[in-house]
Amino acid sequence: MDKQKLEIRLDYSNVMSENIGETHGLARQDLEALQDRTRDIHFDFYRLRERKELPFMNLPYEKEVVDEIKHYVEANRGRFENYVHIGIGGSALGPIAVQAALHHPFYNLLPPEKRRHAPRMFFLDNIDPDRIAGLLDVIDPAKTLFSVVTKSGGTAETISTFMIFMSRLQAALKNKYRDHLVFITDPVKGFLRKLAADEHIQSFSITPGVGGRFSVLTPVGLFPAMLSGLSGDELLSGAGFAVSKCGTEDLLQNPAYLFGAINYLLYRKGKRSVVMLPYSDRLYRTADWFRQLWAESLGKRVNLKKEVVHVGPTPIKALGVTDQHSQVQLYVEGPFDKLFAFLEVESFSETVPIPPFEKPDPTTDYLAGKSMNRLISAEKKATELAMTRHERPNVTFKFPVVSEFTLGQIFMILEIATAYTGRLFEIDPFNQPGVEEGKLATYAFMGREGFQEKRKLIEDELNSRKIYQV
Amino acid sequence: MDKQKLEIRLDYSNVMSENIGETHGLARQDLEALQDRTRDIHFDFYRLRERKELPFMNLPYEKEVVDEIKHYVEANRGRFENYVHIGIGGSALGPIAVQAALHHPFYNLLPPEKRRHAPRMFFLDNIDPDRIAGLLDVIDPAKTLFSVVTKSGGTAETISTFMIFMSRLQAALKNKYRDHLVFITDPVKGFLRKLAADEHIQSFSITPGVGGRFSVLTPVGLFPAMLSGLSGDELLSGAGFAVSKCGTEDLLQNPAYLFGAINYLLYRKGKRSVVMLPYSDRLYRTADWFRQLWAESLGKRVNLKKEVVHVGPTPIKALGVTDQHSQVQLYVEGPFDKLFAFLEVESFSETVPIPPFEKPDPTTDYLAGKSMNRLISAEKKATELAMTRHERPNVTFKFPVVSEFTLGQIFMILEIATAYTGRLFEIDPFNQPGVEEGKLATYAFMGREGFQEKRKLIEDELNSRKIYQV
Repeated sequence: MDKQKLEIRLDYSNVMSENIGETHGLARQDLEALQDRTRDIHFDFYRLRERKELPFMNLPYEKEVVDEIKHYVEANRGRFENYVHIGIGGSALGPIAVQAALHHPFYNLLPPEKRRHAPRMFFLDNIDPDRIAGLLDVIDPAKTLFSVVTKSGGTAETISTFMIFMSRLQAALKNKYRDHLVFITDPVKGFLRKLAADEHIQSFSITPGVGGRFSVLTPVGLFPAMLSGLSGDELLSGAGFAVSKCGTEDLLQNPAYLFGAINYLLYRKGKRSVVMLPYSDRLYRTADWFRQLWAESLGKRVNLKKEVVHVGPTPIKALGVTDQHSQVQLYVEGPFDKLFAFLEVESFSETVPIPPFEKPDPTTDYLAGKSMNRLISAEKKATELAMTRHERPNVTFKFPVVSEFTLGQIFMILEIATAYTGRLFEIDPFNQPGVEEGKLATYAFMGREGFQEKRKLIEDELNSRKIYQV
Repeated sequence: MDKQKLEIRLDYSNVMSENIGETHGLARQDLEALQDRTRDIHFDFYRLRERKELPFMNLPYEKEVVDEIKHYVEANRGRFENYVHIGIGGSALGPIAVQAALHHPFYNLLPPEKRRHAPRMFFLDNIDPDRIAGLLDVIDPAKTLFSVVTKSGGTAETISTFMIFMSRLQAALKNKYRDHLVFITDPVKGFLRKLAADEHIQSFSITPGVGGRFSVLTPVGLFPAMLSGLSGDELLSGAGFAVSKCGTEDLLQNPAYLFGAINYLLYRKGKRSVVMLPYSDRLYRTADWFRQLWAESLGKRVNLKKEVVHVGPTPIKALGVTDQHSQVQLYVEGPFDKLFAFLEVESFSETVPIPPFEKPDPTTDYLAGKSMNRLISAEKKATELAMTRHERPNVTFKFPVVSEFTLGQIFMILEIATAYTGRLFEIDPFNQPGVEEGKLATYAFMGREGFQEKRKLIEDELNSRKIYQV
């Protein structure tokens, strides 16, 4: 298929004041006023890329990673009934988004032949005891491949989950447990990297300098995708296509910069939240992936000059048409504090006709002979219309289809948008200083060596608080 | 077990200025200043209940509904391999919350004997063609019970989905299709009610006056719960317990009113979003249920005096500990525009120990010999601590366990809180005028009889818009 026909397009008509009014819309001059800054940012990105300091944008061209994974997948085809992905945050959200978008919606319930004998896919991205114990009720560790995914190699949630399954694997398989493990971690540093070397465990490397939330196109996302029969080449190819499309400094031609600029300008007009609203079950988890990318990158206490700014748009996920019956009342009538980003699928994998009903009735007649495809498309158009009439700014990313190629595109467009928007907000989009405090407090509560003093201080602090409970 | 020990408690220490400072906290006087209004609202609710005009609060005492469902369930035990619940919005979110909270986390993957031969449970709350076609790949309609749930009896998404499965059922079962259908709808009105009467199809009634988002304790939620072996009696009993606990006009003793008052007061201090953050996979879908309840009830254009107010807090769902690696950076460092509502489980169904690792290493040593239960509890405490230090107001609903009894409580507490908060905002929490426009536009786009003129007007409107796309 012609790649141009698989291009994701960004329709931003309904943020423009001509269509939604001046109070909540943007004028063309608002965008044009950002052109000079955009050019500077663009050429700075160009220089950074040349120095390999923006490595996520080079991932589409690192084809050897795909070959390496292909080799593993081919050598191990048919060996595993189950795949368990142990990772959290950036180590899980991308892979889950890929899984949900590209596999059968009830994948794990399909018989093996309908999965082409690829394993059932499980993602453990929480430490809920009931979920972990529950998983052991439905998988046999001896027939399972466990992938342990942590960039640092030491994430508490991931390592503790690994310890539980490691002990099960060793009990079931003795020394053969190694063949049931894959580590995806830093190429050089950390506990897992050392363990991989010491115990000769299969491992893949997360490209240095690529943070968790930008890592879906490294083995973090590619390995489970390819293990379950999806095309890593096409994911990278779609991402590469997006890098090219976003290779222009012209703001009005660059979907990543446009999305960023619209978010930035509307944030300054009081739209502090952006609701990603896919009209497709397959893309709901992509909205989850976006939530991390946007929140963790742009939610910051200080700017680049170390001034306290407490800035950051709040990403919200919603699902069309489902949330029309839950959130749209608020979206249409509530405060003017949101921007909406629809994800629209122009052609679904399946066409589902609505058969006629026996007796004529106004409740059924207008549906009979149409299709669910037409209905979901009509509802998206109707919601978009209602929002626009109520002066709620909204954009639409139009997916010709949901495929590896389009998913690769949206990942890259939104990642570039994140880096760009970080510059507009004048913050560092690649750090996450605000999560450190909770991590250290967890060590203290868990009695980690060296944290005794911290624990005492925390206990004193908690004891000094006044408790209100009912 | 002693019911008092199963009481949900609301800890609101961390919204009080003594603990988080005056800028973002509430003083005791702020709450006390609402006591008079609270008393008025309370006694007005009391009068409304006597006139049966607040019927959701009477649901805990309508035990005959439970008996009716019990009768059906007993008569049909073991007949179905699958249950498919066709409903959207209030007809789906409650039942899904119950399912997720109280069943095995991988329920549909369990062998029948581990489900005590109750059916696998599927909820179709979207019209995504790929999901609907996909479901047909994994169920045999001839072994499936379909429940069609719509209060009006005419919801487009529900009826179209029903039409698809109706045709499959009739093809597979000829005249016996009736035994594979249950309708849950208005006792008197609408298309489904008429069809139930004409075709002698099993039906249950949604209590008149109870809106979709308040309907989880009607057959909407009770039927799928009880069909899959859960206790309807206990759900109602928990809800009744909450009605009693919230039976006081003393704001400081009433968890529903307190939660509402805190939300209202902090909204006025610029905290326009409330993030429900369960530290439990089981309760994640309860946060989804809450999203509808809160958004659709409180997000309103006009107040009771018909003045334009565009009011409404934005409910957001997040999941602990998972979203610590996605949203907490923003929550701790971003704008001061959120209130957090933790859901904490004190005792999980399972205890999962973390076994020691072979060789000592600081990465694993502090985890070894502890449990996942302790880890998730430590992380919740750590996140709460970090938020509180950063002056982010937060409350915690403490669940002794997740059970029918506690779930019934939280449903009722939050429903009463919704009615009460609607009064504080001086809006009608029981209507949803903002969704009508999209519904009518959908009819127009679908070519419904009588909407031709509307369609032409919409097409003209759309054609007059300037398109911006890249």
